[in-house]
Amino acid sequence: MLILGIDPGSTRTGYGIIKKDGNNLRLIKSGLLKISSKDKQQRLVELAQSFSGLIKKQKPQLIAIEKLFFMKNIKTALDVAQSRGVLTLIALEHKIPLLEYSPSEIKAAATGYGLADKKAVAKMVAIILKVDKINKIDDVTDALATAITAANNLNKNNFL
Amino acid sequence: MLILGIDPGSTRTGYGIIKKDGNNLRLIKSGLLKISSKDKQQRLVELAQSFSGLIKKQKPQLIAIEKLFFMKNIKTALDVAQSRGVLTLIALEHKIPLLEYSPSEIKAAATGYGLADKKAVAKMVAIILKVDKINKIDDVTDALATAITAANNLNKNNFL
Repeated sequence: MLILGIDPGSTRTGYGIIKKDGNNLRLIKSGLLKISSKDKQQRLVELAQSFSGLIKKQKPQLIAIEKLFFMKNIKTALDVAQSRGVLTLIALEHKIPLLEYSPSEIKAAATGYGLADKKAVAKMVAIILKVDKINKIDDVTDALATAITAANNLNKNNFL
Repeated sequence: MLILGIDPGSTRTGYGIIKKDGNNLRLIKSGLLKISSKDKQQRLVELAQSFSGLIKKQKPQLIAIEKLFFMKNIKTALDVAQSRGVLTLIALEHKIPLLEYSPSEIKAAATGYGLADKKAVAKMVAIILKVDKINKIDDVTDALATAITAANNLNKNNFL
């Protein structure tokens, strides 16, 4: 099963696609959605186009995204929420199930510890996906961790 | 010129369309965008469809929307921001200019007073648009006030 994890940000949105074969998880592709405009409204249009293009090309069967949560910077939180609204719309327009996980669920799935820092998450993502070099950008490793969370939860359901 | 004002909410989104002929403003249509699903993700899809349908039918030349601002309830603010992201995307996909005004700019445009309450805004909207009966729902009168704000700002530009 092909799972796409997304880490929506106010300026950058990371994505990570993994393939789940049984209990094995493999990295397929990861990076940042391409957005270049400096205009805030136009950035949402580019985000929609870039995300839609990725879905059409990679054909994920499941998309996982971080739940909205309170951030210290309210202005940033509102910008992230706007992006997240657009991403939700596009996922559903492509009729792909969109699963939502809290930051602590994602950290716990990647590291076993719900309060892990971003460095620990990045390190464990590399180990779980058995890659030596992983993208150093937090938004990308967080997106991969989100995809891993969805994969683990599918596993759990199999065990029921 | 046909101006569409929008008041995005976490549960309801009001809209108001006014026609500006010289200095005369006239009410064309107002109400709430139709959203019935209880599922949060699905509501964003319905919002997009409903807004897109309204634009196609009414063909506004300008859309005005309230700027994001800090609210007491952060959870509500994030939900509103998600809706607002979707509305921004749809407006731009239809290639209609989207103007943004702060709550105090809107209140000042409708009542002359930036801290006016919703009741005062509703009352002045009815007077400005010369209608006896106006929709009693805040989201609708706020949407009309937003459209009036855009109309007034066009006036100002004319005077330059």
